[in-house]
Amino acid sequence: MSRARVHNFSISLDGFGTGEGQSRDEPFGHAGERLHEWMFATQWWRGPDEPGGSSGVDDAFTRLFDVGIGAEIMGAGKYGYPGWHEDPEWKGWWGANPPFHTPTFILTHHTRPSIEMEGGTTYHFLNASPAEALETARKAAEGQDVRIGGGATMIRDFLAAGLIDYLHVVVVPILLGRGVRLWDGIEGLEKDYQVETTSSPSGVTHVTFTRAGA
Amino acid sequence: MSRARVHNFSISLDGFGTGEGQSRDEPFGHAGERLHEWMFATQWWRGPDEPGGSSGVDDAFTRLFDVGIGAEIMGAGKYGYPGWHEDPEWKGWWGANPPFHTPTFILTHHTRPSIEMEGGTTYHFLNASPAEALETARKAAEGQDVRIGGGATMIRDFLAAGLIDYLHVVVVPILLGRGVRLWDGIEGLEKDYQVETTSSPSGVTHVTFTRAGA
Repeated sequence: MSRARVHNFSISLDGFGTGEGQSRDEPFGHAGERLHEWMFATQWWRGPDEPGGSSGVDDAFTRLFDVGIGAEIMGAGKYGYPGWHEDPEWKGWWGANPPFHTPTFILTHHTRPSIEMEGGTTYHFLNASPAEALETARKAAEGQDVRIGGGATMIRDFLAAGLIDYLHVVVVPILLGRGVRLWDGIEGLEKDYQVETTSSPSGVTHVTFTRAGA
Repeated sequence: MSRARVHNFSISLDGFGTGEGQSRDEPFGHAGERLHEWMFATQWWRGPDEPGGSSGVDDAFTRLFDVGIGAEIMGAGKYGYPGWHEDPEWKGWWGANPPFHTPTFILTHHTRPSIEMEGGTTYHFLNASPAEALETARKAAEGQDVRIGGGATMIRDFLAAGLIDYLHVVVVPILLGRGVRLWDGIEGLEKDYQVETTSSPSGVTHVTFTRAGA
């Protein structure tokens, strides 16, 4: 069975997955890097050339990011800054060798030809519903799982459509006050999932929603 | 130093301190008792006549509820159902011997004479700002701390006014979708506090905000 999985999706204590005022200079708006500092501190993020990162529960969760993943779907707002579709040279935030290493589908009303990057990542641009996009990505994943990459709006859309099998959210103890909320419009989500919470010495709390049988 | 403390204040994962549709029959609206089941399961709540409750971190936190407390302030929405002020016989939800056992100040535009209950609780009705109410309650507490009892709206008002020294919030892993939010309008609150998070085997997460020096 090919599952649809969300990993390492960070939100503030008041539920915002990104801040207000996103731009090319500030991809997360006024949140800056505050939602992701816990991840930057892990051994996984730092990699073998930069020793000394944390190796506890935060690191363990981050390492699940690409295990068994055969494709990613992301929203247009993750792929680029507001207005990227007017820039024919834009190829995402992640440089020549992006960290996806699989077919990667960008949901957008502004499609363009696919872009082959180094390291196995190919960007495909899809104007499709969540269910249609997942079907396409599953074929590309050849039996492996599909990562649902974010941002908040597209994860919420996939949750509302009942398409997510595993959701890993990281609650960071800051109050952003404004931005894009993850949880709006999905009352009662927990009824379809087994929910577990694990707080880390770093201060963040990992919350996992696992669908029965998934 | 007399501190202003919040204890055992439960919110959903999406930040609601109470549900929608509060009434005399449904004090927490559509949330029902779901925000407080973790507390009902503790030894502290069950008391000596009903053994078998949980004795871990949930129980430890609940037992701080009345330690060193000399008065409580609560909002009108905690004291009674919407419209209670039109009922001259209404004396709160908690029966003849309420669990406060101190002077207890109700913030309301509809004041009435004080009501002496059994067990040390006296209800006083105040039409006052958060700062004024806290000054009054501190005098009544005779050097001890003041509990800020909720609901969500009045805690938010006290936080926005910079009056809270210790805030214990319990995040319950359910999505209510609607109701009264705790966190609105207090961006950056964490800057003035030491924040700690502790997840419990029961599934809830305890988040404490402790003001420097408090």
